[in-house]
Amino acid sequence: MSNSLNDRLKAYADIAAELSVDAVALVPGPNFTRAVDHAFMSHERPFVLVIPARGPAAALVPNLELGSWELVGFDSAVFDWRDQTGYDDAFAALTQHLNITSLAVEGQVMRVFVHHALKKAQPNLEIIDAEREISAPRMIKTDSEIAALQEAIDISERALRATLDSVKLGQTEKEIEQKLVQMLFAEGADDLSFSPIVAAGDGSARPHAKARSDYRVKAGDALLFDFGARKHGFAADITRTVFLGHVSDEGRDVYDTVLRANLAGLDATCAGVTAHEIDDVVTGVLEASPYADRIRTKTGHGLGRDVHEAPYIMRGNHMSLPAGTVYTNEPGLYEIGNFGVRIEDDVLITEDGYKSLTNFPKELMVLPC
Amino acid sequence: MSNSLNDRLKAYADIAAELSVDAVALVPGPNFTRAVDHAFMSHERPFVLVIPARGPAAALVPNLELGSWELVGFDSAVFDWRDQTGYDDAFAALTQHLNITSLAVEGQVMRVFVHHALKKAQPNLEIIDAEREISAPRMIKTDSEIAALQEAIDISERALRATLDSVKLGQTEKEIEQKLVQMLFAEGADDLSFSPIVAAGDGSARPHAKARSDYRVKAGDALLFDFGARKHGFAADITRTVFLGHVSDEGRDVYDTVLRANLAGLDATCAGVTAHEIDDVVTGVLEASPYADRIRTKTGHGLGRDVHEAPYIMRGNHMSLPAGTVYTNEPGLYEIGNFGVRIEDDVLITEDGYKSLTNFPKELMVLPC
Repeated sequence: MSNSLNDRLKAYADIAAELSVDAVALVPGPNFTRAVDHAFMSHERPFVLVIPARGPAAALVPNLELGSWELVGFDSAVFDWRDQTGYDDAFAALTQHLNITSLAVEGQVMRVFVHHALKKAQPNLEIIDAEREISAPRMIKTDSEIAALQEAIDISERALRATLDSVKLGQTEKEIEQKLVQMLFAEGADDLSFSPIVAAGDGSARPHAKARSDYRVKAGDALLFDFGARKHGFAADITRTVFLGHVSDEGRDVYDTVLRANLAGLDATCAGVTAHEIDDVVTGVLEASPYADRIRTKTGHGLGRDVHEAPYIMRGNHMSLPAGTVYTNEPGLYEIGNFGVRIEDDVLITEDGYKSLTNFPKELMVLPC
Repeated sequence: MSNSLNDRLKAYADIAAELSVDAVALVPGPNFTRAVDHAFMSHERPFVLVIPARGPAAALVPNLELGSWELVGFDSAVFDWRDQTGYDDAFAALTQHLNITSLAVEGQVMRVFVHHALKKAQPNLEIIDAEREISAPRMIKTDSEIAALQEAIDISERALRATLDSVKLGQTEKEIEQKLVQMLFAEGADDLSFSPIVAAGDGSARPHAKARSDYRVKAGDALLFDFGARKHGFAADITRTVFLGHVSDEGRDVYDTVLRANLAGLDATCAGVTAHEIDDVVTGVLEASPYADRIRTKTGHGLGRDVHEAPYIMRGNHMSLPAGTVYTNEPGLYEIGNFGVRIEDDVLITEDGYKSLTNFPKELMVLPC
């Protein structure tokens, strides 16, 4: 990442030019944070930074944020608006000032109320979803970004270790989740990457299950943890599945299949591989097993400031992945009503292969509780 | 809140009818959670529930969520899609099935990529931002929702007490924030309502300041905490401002002004008052003071599943507030480069007045550290 604000904004001007649109708009979220090197909240208040292909940027800023916005060192036009008067006039002034007819936006981040406010101010403005292109500069991580991710992951692994050491039969999923969350903060997390998934038994078969207050873990259960700490703005995302007390032959075989898929994906990882190729290898292992009908997800996603970001590791995505990319390798097999297994590593692509930033053991673990 | 899924969905069908649109769409977020009584994540995957004014609802569901979706008990059409094949076909099938020409959406929640996917599937579909109308049913809280909010607030107040007891001169804002976060989880938080604001000295003058690792609190500083625990899906949102060691005459006078504004807002609160009237009273106290140029925000916002939701407590919003509404009363005065003071209570409107769910003392507090 370049060090000056103007250098960073120039990168988005270049994206606008490549897309043949007049400007790129950023709203608070990971690209915005990276561009201005400060994190802002948005909630109900529109906050938009517009970077034209040519010419100076302009910003629409909630008045209450002007003090924080000063810290950004932005030396170009600012249109602020106050809660009491609303933001329509500021959007009108912004669009008049910009004099553009097409605008590329982050479709995964910008919400419809901002889209509609822009269209109300300038009905002929063409708004294009360019999430992929606008987020692309985030894909290759700098050394300091990798260090932040590693710190987030190390915190997460220490928290998981402490949590596994404390699991007892008869605890609820919710109790185990609360222990995990407490340990994440005790180990130094700034925040959670997302609300953790702690799911046992049939819950483990629902990829995004919520921890239940009324399900008590029992011998023979699969127990799946999918969680992460956020540190210095970067989000860890780790999954491990363990078994409690004992494991069935089926459980052992499913686990082995998922682990082989995960390892095959790692083996296939090096600079220049495509997202398609990784998913094809990983999903290929699952498909060749007796459990092909338990496949429910792609292999994974990019990881950084956002817990799900480009590149999406799936067939059909023929994007070549350069060194410095970090992605999640998270194959899983899920049988609704029975159990699920997922194993997720955070993987840094290097020139000659990969480095797994997650180091938590992946051998089948049967907790003797 | 009604107890059956169909009753809850019927309320959104009625909203569609009132708005004279063919249907209402919900995407994962507070309305969606309330409607289906389960929390879902969305990230990069579109997930849409459409409730027509007449006829059965339909849902577009990521395949990996089908296991969780089963728990909802939804007995109507589901269009699922898989990562590997994408969602365009599912949107096409959904819109063909629905046969509608206008759709009201939650503009504060739905992101542009879903908007564009709907428009791609059906270019003539008119998409209207009806955030206010769709979120309106959340405004009046049930007894169990108020109990959840009270629990979140009680946790938050215990955490603040423990944090204040531990503040020492020379600590960084970041250290104090980490203590606060640890105490929130130790006291039972399920999650944070939002990334806390812990801001001292000139930082307190920026309403949404981030805690700094390089600012050490010193005697004479204002120290502002704006934070909350989330419990059972409900979000607390509390602000208190204290002074460290000693307080200047200006600090005392500004604090007294903000407290008088807060108390005047409480006095004006009863069932049937309008949002305009509360803000007018609160902001009126600030405007009548020597610090009118330090006003930066409206009085507050609704509070519930979302930390910022309707009603927005500001002049011009002539919505009448019924008993059962919970709003934040959070006047503040901010001088950039100097200091800021904000005092925020979470207030339940009752038939004959109000009940402050926050009970943390508001008298000027000078920590003897």
